[in-house]
Amino acid sequence: MHSLVDGQWRRNAYRATDDSGEFQRQETSFRDRIEADPDARYPAEAGRYHLYVSWACPWAHRTLVTRALKGLEDAITVDVVDPVRRVDGWEFAPEKDGCTPDTVNDADKLRDVYTAADPDFTGRVTVPVLWDKERETIVNNESEEIMRMLDVAMHDVGTKDVDLYPEGYRDEVDRLIDEIYDPINNGVYRAGFATSQEAYENAIDDLFGALDHWDDVLADQRYLAGDVLTEADVAMFTTLIRFDEVYHTHFKCNVARIADYPNLWNYLKELYQLPGVAETVRMDHIKHHYYESHRDLNPGGKVPVGSEPDFDAPHDRDELPGGPPEALE
Amino acid sequence: MHSLVDGQWRRNAYRATDDSGEFQRQETSFRDRIEADPDARYPAEAGRYHLYVSWACPWAHRTLVTRALKGLEDAITVDVVDPVRRVDGWEFAPEKDGCTPDTVNDADKLRDVYTAADPDFTGRVTVPVLWDKERETIVNNESEEIMRMLDVAMHDVGTKDVDLYPEGYRDEVDRLIDEIYDPINNGVYRAGFATSQEAYENAIDDLFGALDHWDDVLADQRYLAGDVLTEADVAMFTTLIRFDEVYHTHFKCNVARIADYPNLWNYLKELYQLPGVAETVRMDHIKHHYYESHRDLNPGGKVPVGSEPDFDAPHDRDELPGGPPEALE
Repeated sequence: MHSLVDGQWRRNAYRATDDSGEFQRQETSFRDRIEADPDARYPAEAGRYHLYVSWACPWAHRTLVTRALKGLEDAITVDVVDPVRRVDGWEFAPEKDGCTPDTVNDADKLRDVYTAADPDFTGRVTVPVLWDKERETIVNNESEEIMRMLDVAMHDVGTKDVDLYPEGYRDEVDRLIDEIYDPINNGVYRAGFATSQEAYENAIDDLFGALDHWDDVLADQRYLAGDVLTEADVAMFTTLIRFDEVYHTHFKCNVARIADYPNLWNYLKELYQLPGVAETVRMDHIKHHYYESHRDLNPGGKVPVGSEPDFDAPHDRDELPGGPPEALE
Repeated sequence: MHSLVDGQWRRNAYRATDDSGEFQRQETSFRDRIEADPDARYPAEAGRYHLYVSWACPWAHRTLVTRALKGLEDAITVDVVDPVRRVDGWEFAPEKDGCTPDTVNDADKLRDVYTAADPDFTGRVTVPVLWDKERETIVNNESEEIMRMLDVAMHDVGTKDVDLYPEGYRDEVDRLIDEIYDPINNGVYRAGFATSQEAYENAIDDLFGALDHWDDVLADQRYLAGDVLTEADVAMFTTLIRFDEVYHTHFKCNVARIADYPNLWNYLKELYQLPGVAETVRMDHIKHHYYESHRDLNPGGKVPVGSEPDFDAPHDRDELPGGPPEALE
């Protein structure tokens, strides 16, 4: 059911550092695909697929933002785990605000969902998980691949005509997603989980070099790929939204806040204010997850009060060419 | 040699939390006084007294700023300990940049200076320590009392005619030093060392309530006591200068930076730019001390890169009535 993976995707996984103290992610395990073709093993259908997520996880968050932007809320069900990850990994805690039970497999722990899909599974138990309720197995647990499936294969199932991987931009979107991954999306983790000062400082240099670069680019350009909203913006969004409240303090990314970057800050507010996106942002889950789960970084588990950025404040992005698809206006 | 102390002074000491998780400081131990009277046990004299300090410690820093503002650099010698405090407490590390050997007692560890003064000493070994080279003992290890002695008793010894405890302001200065201690000077420690979320949040409320208040007051008033520079400003300074680089991240005081408060930020820059003050600020020692000494808060010991505030940038305080004493212009 799961397959080994070549080096291309390094998302959603395990914490480990190499000899130099640099954080390395482990590979994900389930790599099947939903396809638009009705004869496919996993055909695009409303009501068939299910997402297991944490509101806290930036990788899971990509799939939730895509689901919202595409109008797939009714077509794809969602269960939400406890934001605090403990020794047994992600667990269900339906009594907690914003959490759900496992409505599909009735599991107590997410690892039971993985072993339901593959009794021999021994890999890392991560979110998001895309579950097929018909074949009763995991289709995929790689966030970018799920985002792509929801965007492209499930396009006709969604209620909103929003294409985040438009023809003419596809190579650029793929390139951008790769380009921002190492310094930004994973860069904050490389900073936070580095076990040497040198590895930390390298990560910080990469991270703020990339943020400086994108703040410059976004002075004249509305989105990462140009005038149109794409998956690359979704990928950027889920890191930026967590930055000031979590990464700045918890991962020591304290050279600057996103709110200190005029263009990144306005860009972030625009994305947050797109229809359906704010509903995917549970800052309480985000904060409790990081500060309470990583006791090796934050032994006391105290959750900082923080600057509480006002993501609903006006933005200035309408002054630039381009804009969101009509279905999101 | 040392005396027990009533509850009035709660500076420079021990980390402990009570049942509610609130940080409590232990009392300091040596409470004798230098006096202007030449017949006193500890008379004001150039060349007789010595300070043991850490560049990192905000309490020791008060004595260094006072020494600089009063022009006491030639009259009072200084030794500097290793910024990183280890299991044996403060130690001398003369090979490190900015550190010195113990030039008076030739000790390896500061605790040996304490036991040289009192062989039965069992209290907390803290900086600053004011040492009398003639009687070969500790006069005092309470930072505010040392600041006061340098300011008042040693006034005629200093080369600069600067009075930080001027007649007509004395009650107000005493009141202000007390007023800012709990929410601000010790407030950052109460936040950082709290062992419960509630105690932490109480400290944060007190701290940012007080910073908000002083930012308002300093919109129309040049210094804490009004138009004149006083010891209260010295006491405020040594906390503010550490805030953005240390307390904001390390002690989770991340509601705002001092650089986000227009009046506190300009006030801080003015104080930093007074003659002799910048030379008392060793940000490398400050950062390494906090991030490397408190492994229970920062297990990895990584030192954040930080925002590197530009304390030399222009300030706008000359628009307000009052100003520094002529000797500091």
